[in-house]
Amino acid sequence: MTYTVHINVMPLKELLDPQGKAVLSGLGNLGLNAVEDVRIGKHITLQINAGSEKEARQIAEEASRKLLANPVMEYFEISVKN
Amino acid sequence: MTYTVHINVMPLKELLDPQGKAVLSGLGNLGLNAVEDVRIGKHITLQINAGSEKEARQIAEEASRKLLANPVMEYFEISVKN
Repeated sequence: MTYTVHINVMPLKELLDPQGKAVLSGLGNLGLNAVEDVRIGKHITLQINAGSEKEARQIAEEASRKLLANPVMEYFEISVKN
Repeated sequence: MTYTVHINVMPLKELLDPQGKAVLSGLGNLGLNAVEDVRIGKHITLQINAGSEKEARQIAEEASRKLLANPVMEYFEISVKN
């Protein structure tokens, strides 16, 4: 069965996010001053062929640890849909 | 009140995603052959000061249309938490 797994890879909360700061400034220039903070990361969708949701999640975790996220600067969150 | 709004900006489904294809190939090289497809976009978190969830969503939609997403190549999805 094929599971759709969503992974968010985000900059660690204690780190500055220069891309987010640039977008925050751009939104201010557009008059969108209600936006107080912006953080930008990656959204990755995987199609995983697995026997169970648990197995799909394990594969996504391994992919995140080995390739998708840099633990020095980023953390990741995984959610699975079937 | 401050609302946390999550926006996913993803490449349109009918378009090739070269970054996703590169990651798919990299996962294969790591032995993660259960992954059948990868698509990569942006995950953006906004902190929005708004009077209601509806207003926060409207501001996020305006930000997405005006700055965050390129409609020629990307679509966006918004979800709001308070």
